[in-house]
Amino acid sequence: MTHADARMIAEFFDDLGRIGIDPAVGFSRLAFGEAEREAHALFESQLEQYGLQTYTDAVGGSYGILPGKEDLPALITGSHLNTVYSGGNFDGAAGVAAAVEVARIFAGQEELARTLRVVAFAGEEVARFGATCMGSRLMTGAYTAETLRTLVDRDGTTAFEAATTVGLTPQDASSARWNSDDVVCFVEVHIEQGRVLEARDREIGIVHSIGGSTRVELVFAGRADHSGATPMWLRKDALAAAAEYVLMVESRAKAHATTVTTVGRLDVSPNSMTTVAGSVLIQLDVRDIDSERQRDLAEDLLDDATRIAAGRDIKLTARPASDQSPVVLHGTVQTVATQRQGIPFLSMPSGASHDAAHIAKHVATGMAFVPCREGISHSPEEHAEPRHIATAVDVVVEAFRAIDGGFRV
Amino acid sequence: MTHADARMIAEFFDDLGRIGIDPAVGFSRLAFGEAEREAHALFESQLEQYGLQTYTDAVGGSYGILPGKEDLPALITGSHLNTVYSGGNFDGAAGVAAAVEVARIFAGQEELARTLRVVAFAGEEVARFGATCMGSRLMTGAYTAETLRTLVDRDGTTAFEAATTVGLTPQDASSARWNSDDVVCFVEVHIEQGRVLEARDREIGIVHSIGGSTRVELVFAGRADHSGATPMWLRKDALAAAAEYVLMVESRAKAHATTVTTVGRLDVSPNSMTTVAGSVLIQLDVRDIDSERQRDLAEDLLDDATRIAAGRDIKLTARPASDQSPVVLHGTVQTVATQRQGIPFLSMPSGASHDAAHIAKHVATGMAFVPCREGISHSPEEHAEPRHIATAVDVVVEAFRAIDGGFRV
Repeated sequence: MTHADARMIAEFFDDLGRIGIDPAVGFSRLAFGEAEREAHALFESQLEQYGLQTYTDAVGGSYGILPGKEDLPALITGSHLNTVYSGGNFDGAAGVAAAVEVARIFAGQEELARTLRVVAFAGEEVARFGATCMGSRLMTGAYTAETLRTLVDRDGTTAFEAATTVGLTPQDASSARWNSDDVVCFVEVHIEQGRVLEARDREIGIVHSIGGSTRVELVFAGRADHSGATPMWLRKDALAAAAEYVLMVESRAKAHATTVTTVGRLDVSPNSMTTVAGSVLIQLDVRDIDSERQRDLAEDLLDDATRIAAGRDIKLTARPASDQSPVVLHGTVQTVATQRQGIPFLSMPSGASHDAAHIAKHVATGMAFVPCREGISHSPEEHAEPRHIATAVDVVVEAFRAIDGGFRV
Repeated sequence: MTHADARMIAEFFDDLGRIGIDPAVGFSRLAFGEAEREAHALFESQLEQYGLQTYTDAVGGSYGILPGKEDLPALITGSHLNTVYSGGNFDGAAGVAAAVEVARIFAGQEELARTLRVVAFAGEEVARFGATCMGSRLMTGAYTAETLRTLVDRDGTTAFEAATTVGLTPQDASSARWNSDDVVCFVEVHIEQGRVLEARDREIGIVHSIGGSTRVELVFAGRADHSGATPMWLRKDALAAAAEYVLMVESRAKAHATTVTTVGRLDVSPNSMTTVAGSVLIQLDVRDIDSERQRDLAEDLLDDATRIAAGRDIKLTARPASDQSPVVLHGTVQTVATQRQGIPFLSMPSGASHDAAHIAKHVATGMAFVPCREGISHSPEEHAEPRHIATAVDVVVEAFRAIDGGFRV
């Protein structure tokens, strides 16, 4: 039985690391940009070396095909190659490198009954167009050509225009959709982007579910007053209210192990040393793998904000920013991915969302995490070990062999 | 007995309101800038109409002189005419308008034994050069020509160069110093910049002391982590630590009526909705009229920060930003300013610092506050009622008459 070769994987990252180098720092391979296309071309040319047929669909999804002996729904694995601004070389790319290695193993060794497809989705990162997972949402029909016309980057270019500029045909977006009858399962390998695997000393995580998120933007509006001339009893300090709230947000998450709540963005106005804060904008991110708990907690946290604001005679406004449900991944894919491995794995949720969360709504989906060094992601410091990715490849190969061999999904 | 004329005062603001109008919004009469000089020229020409001799000193202080019958230390009143960027028409200007009216009353009515001097100090606002009360500090010798060479605006121009550009001779700064033997007392009228007078329903405040301030910049450095992928137990959330601290800062001030503590500036990094805050910078402003309490509290608040950071395994760095002692104003000036008035006044501290705080270190100094609408200051919305300023003028006139008449300072 062939195992994945960490050196081959390392070489892929070396080649990829020459694409989209940001003059500032790190990598900027943005959604529907030239560097993303260049990375996809690398992916396809690598697959062609292994004898796969390749093609790019209308909205920039790149595929390699290894035809199976029979006319059965396909096995698919892959991820994305685009990055945030000044990001790293491993987010998404780890799963694409894994897919290339899966293709190499099957292309060189054995003929599958099922067709193997490997994929690189375009536009996963929110950075350029303010929308995540555009490629996978286009695959499922959740996004259409019309959606791409409404998404705009900071220069005013729509996703539709950007895709056209790099030679794609977004007007034919519907042709890129997956037919769920043609797919038996999809497995995505991804870096963890957290520190749980490191903290638990595991080389691989098998993801049982992908957390949903409810995001709310709140503004506490008090009074901007002179910090010297205004005694404490006359103040309506928006930052003090916001501070109460930040601690409330933190403490409420502690009730449930799978809940994470974050205030990561907080803007003070006028933000001057000698002025009591007049208003504070907060962005709240509530995530859970239990959709009811996620929504209930978000509601509780709105009540908390209302109560804190009222207690200080401060005005509160809140507007929902986004709401995405958790997704439970397919039990069979988890089972076959884990049962035949001697590798100590961790069954874990994904707090971050991924292409897999969208694909999972349409086809049986599994996901494997590899550790990323110190949990650092979306940064030039991002690093994952090729040998850990090789382990993930072995897991995917085993799972695909099992399903190809008749293990019923 | 002549009383101050609110209409004359209103006219001064009308004239002044044509100078330094900011194309953005409000007024920008910056320290050692053209608009400041234009405002000083208006002040001098007004005084000349009332028969005073006027002159501008080497560092932009403008004076009007009404010679007394005897060779005795002078009575002085005044304030400043420069503003912050996009400021209002009343901060500082209220005291200069009052000084003009004091001059008009004495010039038209009665001969004083003592010489009356009215003054507009240059460069009181911190906005342009990052230093407050440059004019009054130059009067006392706390600042010299050398100091002006070290203060730089955002375009890289030094205060020395700026003063030279508008025709001043900062190299002769020492010639502008006051000889404290020549001055019996200084009284400054100023808008309150808070809401205490409005809340207490008083038209005038007699300031007994000017608060000092100890300012500290703190950085809580935790870990920037993915908000989805990092469970609560693995986080080192710098914003949660900062929130604890903001509430601690607020609560500690509540122990003393004259203490005010403020976190008005707080910068989160990277300040992204989906990233646990990696670090937070806080600027702390501790003010009191009791210098020991001010410094003790600032020390306690450093201990608090250390404890909060340690409790979360977060790094803390702190650096002193500035430290200014409180100033107790002269009891006699307070007494004469209040004893002969039928006006209900409020004896109060000034939380904000003023030119008077610097002058008070060298000569007997008093200060009167007039309400400013809703406590709004450093804003185009800033407004003070001319009739309230007229009341303050009456107080100054009465105080000067009493001292001129022999009430011993």
